[in-house]
Amino acid sequence: MNAALDDLVGSVLPLHPALAREAQAVLDAKTKPRGSLGRLEELAVRLASVRGTLRPDPLEAAVVVAAGDHGVAREGVSAYPQEVTGQMLATFASGGAAVAVLCRGAGARLVVVDAGVIDPPFVPGLRDLSLGRGTANALDGPAMERAVAADGIVRGADLGRELARDGAGVIALGEMGIGNTTVAAALTSVLLDCDVAAVCGRGTGLDDAGLARKLAVVRRMVATSSPRADDPLGVLAAVGGFELAVLAGVALGAASERAVVVLDGFISSVSALVATRLAPPLGEYLVASHRSPEPGHGPVLDALRLAPLLDLGLRLGEGSGAVLALPLLAAARAILVDMATFADAGVTDTGR
Amino acid sequence: MNAALDDLVGSVLPLHPALAREAQAVLDAKTKPRGSLGRLEELAVRLASVRGTLRPDPLEAAVVVAAGDHGVAREGVSAYPQEVTGQMLATFASGGAAVAVLCRGAGARLVVVDAGVIDPPFVPGLRDLSLGRGTANALDGPAMERAVAADGIVRGADLGRELARDGAGVIALGEMGIGNTTVAAALTSVLLDCDVAAVCGRGTGLDDAGLARKLAVVRRMVATSSPRADDPLGVLAAVGGFELAVLAGVALGAASERAVVVLDGFISSVSALVATRLAPPLGEYLVASHRSPEPGHGPVLDALRLAPLLDLGLRLGEGSGAVLALPLLAAARAILVDMATFADAGVTDTGR
Repeated sequence: MNAALDDLVGSVLPLHPALAREAQAVLDAKTKPRGSLGRLEELAVRLASVRGTLRPDPLEAAVVVAAGDHGVAREGVSAYPQEVTGQMLATFASGGAAVAVLCRGAGARLVVVDAGVIDPPFVPGLRDLSLGRGTANALDGPAMERAVAADGIVRGADLGRELARDGAGVIALGEMGIGNTTVAAALTSVLLDCDVAAVCGRGTGLDDAGLARKLAVVRRMVATSSPRADDPLGVLAAVGGFELAVLAGVALGAASERAVVVLDGFISSVSALVATRLAPPLGEYLVASHRSPEPGHGPVLDALRLAPLLDLGLRLGEGSGAVLALPLLAAARAILVDMATFADAGVTDTGR
Repeated sequence: MNAALDDLVGSVLPLHPALAREAQAVLDAKTKPRGSLGRLEELAVRLASVRGTLRPDPLEAAVVVAAGDHGVAREGVSAYPQEVTGQMLATFASGGAAVAVLCRGAGARLVVVDAGVIDPPFVPGLRDLSLGRGTANALDGPAMERAVAADGIVRGADLGRELARDGAGVIALGEMGIGNTTVAAALTSVLLDCDVAAVCGRGTGLDDAGLARKLAVVRRMVATSSPRADDPLGVLAAVGGFELAVLAGVALGAASERAVVVLDGFISSVSALVATRLAPPLGEYLVASHRSPEPGHGPVLDALRLAPLLDLGLRLGEGSGAVLALPLLAAARAILVDMATFADAGVTDTGR
């Protein structure tokens, strides 16, 4: 590891359990049967714990969408050609993509990041954290150097810290990268030590032949560099990708400034898994927004001990599911801070 | 039936299937793999169909919370005493209740209705549609006269139409009434011809002894008036309650003005079931917001052919789950209207 990465890992602190207990006590005094707001209460408790207060301010949200290209995309593992990564970056920035539309609706700040695409578009507002013009083909050797993976995490962390210091109390992770469910499947199978077939899915729309090809590619990726599960940085360097490195860093940087980190689907969850293997306390800062139909997502969420809030069959990526969960976080905060207690309201409390 | 109810039932028109097909075609041209926004796309299609346009305006939302008391509450079927119904009505109106807090967050108009509580509080803004000071005890005979049930539906429909004409494109149903999961279980077992034990749950927090008592009470309610499944108005009159009658009417009135109707949990879904038995086309105007842990909710949603959007363990009622789903409807509208197409964006479309 490099020194900056060591510092970063040390800056994500475990949360104090007393605050969670106090937050639950506050919720239990509200005018409702105990526990009757279910997972919204759990979310309010996490929010109070991460923010370090029983009365968190209304949450400003930032959504980081990081894009990267993957050498392995040349193996025909996606229904879309590789140039779509760069084209979609432009669509994010111009406001027509799903995540941009959803961010406007949610009042969230959208930060579009070039983590390393082959053809970066020239568009205003694009953040250049590029680690290169796409990763190397992981069938021929490591997708990137170990130092590049570390650098990507550090660059992402700088962005995460900057957004949190600018006022974002919640930072959501989104991604774009043709071929990146292939990369995420390889990362998952190594980090969770499970069979590739159990975590490899159709991505944005592969047919049966495409899925079989993808499965073979993932097996070869894993065999090529033989990365070790107990070396998360090594696994990331071996299979990629740039956007996963940057997002892992964004999560760590955000948590180091006590922002809540909201995951989107399979890819962003895998980046968080890499980051928690580096800094285990990060797990307490995470919220899983939705369950992706990608078969690898469930095992990754289980490993992170997270249950998703939504299950809407979303398989777009871009951070779309994470943005859809932001109103639930806002609602959880409002319940914690704004609801009357039984005593305030003069309501008879006999429930349990 | 009375003449006003006949007119109301005839005013809920089947939707034209062409609009649903056109809306799906619009979604398929957007810059995303086809179907990749999952249930959000389904929601956008329903919204376009109900509103009668492929470009619906931003949705103003109204949340109707109807409260009623139940004679059967005297049988000890709830963890809370009956006076809590009226006390909570005051808390809704004063803004400290969960649904009030959530409505502020969602920018939704909250309409609090006295459908027939024993002690109506004197609070500003409370809509008086009261059908009486609580229903009769359904163990002694019908909870209300058949004409009163019809009148409740008509009063609710007048409110639903009024809100829709005032601009609400989506109307959510919420309720409050100590004892009303008991009533809803009785309605469900008759309307779906299923065993009481399968649809009777712990409400807001009964212990095992309380649940056994509730089960026995529901069996006696059903036996007392022997209502027939093919007579929804008769079932409603037999077991109650006032707030269920009013909400059934709100749903019908809203649909007659082409507003989307969002259900909350078990109680509001049962009121919609009664209403669809009167006017089957209503089913196409409904959206199920969340899955309640009450065991009767699943069978009712199945009968309505609805899949809930959220599953957060909410068991508060008040419309809280319905309000939490409103941002998903807003997001579905934004996707339909505001997203760029592949052609607009110059993105290569090879996916399926």
